[in-house]
Formats: sequence, structure tokens, C-alpha cells
Amino acid sequence: MNKPAPYLSELIGKSVHDIDTPALVIDLDAMKRNLGRMAEFAKKHHVLWRPHAKLHKCVLLAKMQVKAGAVGVCVQKTSEAEIMVAGGVNDVYISNEVIAPAKLARVAALTQAVAGQGGQIAIAVDSLEGVGRLAQAMTEARTGSRNGTPNAATVIDVFVEIDVGQGRCGVQPGPDAVLLALEIRKHPALRFAGLQAYHGKVQHVRNIQERRMAAADAMKAVELTCQLLKAEGIAPGLVTGAGTGSFALEAASGVYGELQAGSFIFMDADYAQNQRDPVQPCFEHALFVRTQVISGHASHAVCDAGHKSHAIDSGLPQVHAFDGQGGLDYFNGGDEHGILRPSAGHTRLPDLGQLLWLIPGHCDPTVNLHDVMIGVSGGLKSGTVERILQVDARGAIT
Amino acid sequence: MNKPAPYLSELIGKSVHDIDTPALVIDLDAMKRNLGRMAEFAKKHHVLWRPHAKLHKCVLLAKMQVKAGAVGVCVQKTSEAEIMVAGGVNDVYISNEVIAPAKLARVAALTQAVAGQGGQIAIAVDSLEGVGRLAQAMTEARTGSRNGTPNAATVIDVFVEIDVGQGRCGVQPGPDAVLLALEIRKHPALRFAGLQAYHGKVQHVRNIQERRMAAADAMKAVELTCQLLKAEGIAPGLVTGAGTGSFALEAASGVYGELQAGSFIFMDADYAQNQRDPVQPCFEHALFVRTQVISGHASHAVCDAGHKSHAIDSGLPQVHAFDGQGGLDYFNGGDEHGILRPSAGHTRLPDLGQLLWLIPGHCDPTVNLHDVMIGVSGGLKSGTVERILQVDARGAIT
Repeated sequence: MNKPAPYLSELIGKSVHDIDTPALVIDLDAMKRNLGRMAEFAKKHHVLWRPHAKLHKCVLLAKMQVKAGAVGVCVQKTSEAEIMVAGGVNDVYISNEVIAPAKLARVAALTQAVAGQGGQIAIAVDSLEGVGRLAQAMTEARTGSRNGTPNAATVIDVFVEIDVGQGRCGVQPGPDAVLLALEIRKHPALRFAGLQAYHGKVQHVRNIQERRMAAADAMKAVELTCQLLKAEGIAPGLVTGAGTGSFALEAASGVYGELQAGSFIFMDADYAQNQRDPVQPCFEHALFVRTQVISGHASHAVCDAGHKSHAIDSGLPQVHAFDGQGGLDYFNGGDEHGILRPSAGHTRLPDLGQLLWLIPGHCDPTVNLHDVMIGVSGGLKSGTVERILQVDARGAIT
Repeated sequence: MNKPAPYLSELIGKSVHDIDTPALVIDLDAMKRNLGRMAEFAKKHHVLWRPHAKLHKCVLLAKMQVKAGAVGVCVQKTSEAEIMVAGGVNDVYISNEVIAPAKLARVAALTQAVAGQGGQIAIAVDSLEGVGRLAQAMTEARTGSRNGTPNAATVIDVFVEIDVGQGRCGVQPGPDAVLLALEIRKHPALRFAGLQAYHGKVQHVRNIQERRMAAADAMKAVELTCQLLKAEGIAPGLVTGAGTGSFALEAASGVYGELQAGSFIFMDADYAQNQRDPVQPCFEHALFVRTQVISGHASHAVCDAGHKSHAIDSGLPQVHAFDGQGGLDYFNGGDEHGILRPSAGHTRLPDLGQLLWLIPGHCDPTVNLHDVMIGVSGGLKSGTVERILQVDARGAIT
């Protein structure tokens, strides 16, 4: 990278007050507490936990999650999987469809590569064409010599994605899913591993009763599909899915065996607006954008963090009510600016030069905007920069 | 960066069909035509042209613009200025406020560095505090020895930003601006260079009459301020501002001497929705996200480009009606997916594996998501990859 940021390496051990703005900062203490709560939850409920690395795109955090009890990580992109494996995380599930033959060749090569290390790669499919192309790529990798000595016995775990209500990818639950499982079983390089059943929309249903009802519909669809698979003599395998908004429901369902929740380690402003399921652990905000007021006016102040510093797809960031800095609302000021006004019932505006912390609306695409996350221990008020965490898979979208 | 993308260097000379998805692609022929139209416009209207490099963050494109007649570039961030200077672009205007002393020290060091190369750095201010801090940083740089041999005569050009209607940064036009100009003139290391008068909101006013009226108000505010400056015996200097939505108005105003328009080289979907000013050249779309259908359904198709591939702050991307691929609407499918449905009056859905081109809603933050832009000549249908353009200042937000 061409960025002249020598100050980053010099920052370790310095005060939180020395961090230049805008910057993405992790409250490491809060994040570790969140991590511990989730690990404990998964253990208590006897479900596997495979957090989505699409959130943090960071090998170091993936390893920290595995150390805490995760069985591996999910990713959405082939290039993310490659980066995780290159960093030493060798149990990776691409929970998404891949169709391009050139990309499937990379998936197959990766599967060969981790097989020798005791790792494994899994992938989702939702079409006969997708199964056929994957099988072809795996067959070619088994006989090809491009990536060292291929193992003719290497298989890839394949999950059939079913649409449990999101209306995006996935075949319809029921017979269509069974058809795909039967097709997968025809190919020796593919192993039918179970069902991908993630309901993205459920995650953000605020009311807990409505969320439960939507999740219950998804679970019925999963159960129906499992019954049909069994009727065909196929073991349904593992059902994997769930996110930070709903995982307590999937864990209690008796049908899901693996949770993909990842966002809870940072807990964005959007997820915090959900009415909390009492069964679910209480998570703290742990990811912040540090920003400074660069322009002051009678009616508003302007800070140096706009939507090149944080994603706004799930709402604008909130000003962290911390150290007497509450009572401010953030308004969109464009790519590089945020506009701050007093919240209802407040009058005070921050001074020129004042430093503030923003809670991003949506952590995943916010992290993707940054090359690094600055890890602070000892809290935001007077903590110390403990480490610089590389966003290894930033921009890895292929 | 840790991204395993050796395929990028191998891509040069290959067909457009070999580009992996999703990818950011420039139609170089269209971009060069846009560039020529703008250079011709500026020449014909006797205004300087200093395009905003916040759009492309690319040294190569900045140099191409200077070669075509631009006097230099604008940036919004100190780190962007550093990257432009490091790449050999040494006439850079930071059209934004900088308040942090550590960052102002970098601005001052940069000013010293380019002074020896015949270049110059300019910056905007909108507060007495800002002028004072900048003067202090410049004074320290004049006597310090951190960056080679400082030149005690080096000055920085300072523009007073006035708020011409956007309600973001900038002092009120009139006496407040004069006060700042007087303050700037007290400091030997600062040179009052003129007024920064950019009206961001005007850029996106669709109706041409309404746009003209809003711009006319801004121009009155500029004129008033210039008159007050003259009354104080201060030459108003250069008035700089304007964007792709309004620059023909500023060029005709008789008060603006420099246009900052930058987006026209790529021409995003948002700007294309403006009712075109007949005086303004006609620009073509030149920046696209190439994407592939990875999941097909009866009601919709899903492509592999979501809002980690393109910004959605100014609307979702449009599907490029090209090569018989029109008649599709793009809906938000989250971070990594786009949902495609037939437009009104159409029924056809794209096939699994089909490749499509998207026109981003807003180019600036879209480019910032990518490490590279793939430059194609000979058109999108059967062209050739001519070069890989690095987004040098991607993520440079400090």
C-alpha cells in the first residue's frame, strides 16, 4: 500500500488520545467479553459455532475466535477463504454460491491445499448447474498438478442452501433441496454435508415476538427438508445458519447444529436496536470510529468522519454517550464529513477540535473501508493502544 | 496487502471477458472523451480547472488530468495530499478544514517539500482558531529541521471557506469571511489566496431552473464577500468551487475563477439524473462494476456485487442497458449480493453465470472500496484490458 502511515507502528503502547482521526478503534476488553459470552453460550447449548469472518476480515480475530471455541469460520468470497487459509485458518466454509469456473478452480485448489494440513473447505450450492461446475473443478484439481501433489481422495463439503424466507439465494425448502442433495451424492469429490439455512431478514426484526414467528417459519422449512431427506435415505447432516439477531432461537430449535453469528463481537448500532431475547447474552459495543470536530457553527458542528469512514447502509452512526459526550445526533455530511446537532432535550455542541466516538450502524461494511483496526485496552477514556489489527481481506470481493 | 491477486498483472492485454467478478472497470475510451470535453470547456470559458482527486484517489489519473490542462488537483484529506505529492503531483489544494496540530504539522512539512520542486500546497480554513493553528504549524516548519532544509520563505495558500448554502463547513459570507482574510494576512507564512465556495447541495438539484436559482444565491453571497474584501483593501483572489452538477453556472458567473468538478470523468448514475444544462458538455458513463449472476430463481436473479462492491449512499446502481442486457432493475441484496428483477414492461431474467455491468450510484465512495480499477480500451463488449490503475489513496481518510 502507498499510504504513508508510519505512525501506526509507533502507536503501540501510546495513549488512546494519540490516535489520529478518523480511525477505526476496537475496545479490546469489551470485544473479549463479548467473545467469552458467545463461546459460553454455544457450549451451554451444545451447538457448534462458526462465526462469519466477513465481519472482521481479520486472520488474527479469526484465530482468536477458534481459540475461544469456534470450529472454524465462514466467509462469503473465495478470495476471503484464500486469505484466511494463507493466514493459517484452515477450516473455512464459503457460505455462498460460486459459479465462475476460474473461481471454482481456486476453491478446488484451496481444498487440496488444506487437506494436507488436516483442514477442510466447505461451500454452499443452490443449483444443479452449480453442483456440476463444482464437481468438474474438484475432479480437475484431483488429477491436475498445478498445486503441488493433488490428493485424489480429497473431497469438499457441500451444503445445500435453502431459502428460509430471505428471498435471495437458496432453493426452495423441500423436494428441490433433496434433488440437489441426490445430485451432490453422485460425485465422488463432493460430500453432502447438510443445509445452509440463514435468514438475513429475521436478524433485524426489532420486536421479539415477530422475530420468533419469522424464525419459527424458517425452522419449519428446515424440518420439512430434513424429513424429506431422511425419506430418501439421506442423513440431513449439519444445519448451519443464524446471525447475531437470532442465534438464540436457532440454538433452541433442535434442528440447527451450527451458528454463524459474528457481529456480536463488535455489536453495531443496528443490532443494538433489536428488542433483546432474554436467552441471548448481553453484548457491548466494541467497535468505534474516532473522529474530531473540524468546523464549528451556531447550529451545528462538523466532524471529520463521513461515509468513507463508516458504512451507512443500516443507518447512520450514533455518537457514543460516553465521558459526558452524549446528547448529540449525527447527520450525513457526505463522503468525508459528519454533521452533529444537539439531540432533543440537549443544547450543547462540541467544541472545535473535540474528539468523539461514533458507533457504526453496520460493522461489516465499515470494517471493509479500513486497512487496520486499532486495538485499545483499558477503555476508550484513558486506555492504551495494544495492537494494530490488519483487515487482511479488506476489499477481497471476488 | 495480503490479497492473492496475481491474476491482475496477467490480465493486461487479455479480453474484457477474462475479468473476474465483481470488479471495478473503467471504459478508458469514454473516460478520455469526457476528459477532453471538460478541458475544452474550461479553456473556452477562461476558467482554471482543478479536479477533485477525492473521486479517483489515483495518481495516474491526476497526472492525466494535469496533462489535459488541469492546474493541479483538490483533495479532502491530508493523507490524500501526501499520496498525490509522493506520486509526483505537486500542486495540491486541501479543500477542507484541518484542525489537529499533528496533521497541520504534516501539511506544513508537505508545503516545505513541494516548495523545492516548484509546487504548492493550499488549504481551506473557516475559523480564527484554524488560522492560528495553521500559522503555528507553518512557523514551526520554517524553523524546524525534521524535513531536510526548511525554507524560511515558504508560504501556504489559504482559502477562506464560505458557506454558500450547503450548511456544512464554511463561515457565513460577508464580514465573517473578511475577518478571517484579515487574520490570515497577519501571518507571514500564510497567503490569503481567495474563497472556497462549493455548494454541494446544488450539484444534485435535478430541475435546471431550480439548480440555476440555488446557484445564483451562492454567487450573490460570493459577490458580496468579494465587495467587502475590496472595501477593506484586500484583493479577493481566486474563487474556487463547483462540481459536475453545476460547473457551467460557476464558469458563466464571472466570479468563479476555478472549477473543482471531478466526477464527470466517470459520470455516475446520480449525476446522470440531473436535467442537463445545455451549456454543459454531454458526459458518458465510464465507470462500471462487472458482476456475475450466481443464483437464479423464478422471480429474480442474484449477482455477486453488493454494497462492498459499490457505494449506495446516492442510490443503488443501475444495470447498464448494453449488448441486449437492459430491462433489469437492481435491488439491495446486502454486503455481497445484488437482486435483479425485470424492469416494468420486461419479463426476461439473466441466466445463471451471465455477466452484467452496473453503473454505480456514486463514484467517489465506490472507487474507495477498491484497490484497483481495471482500464479497458475498445469498449465493454469486446475490448482489451489496457492497464491496471491503482487506487493509491484508497482508505486514506486522515
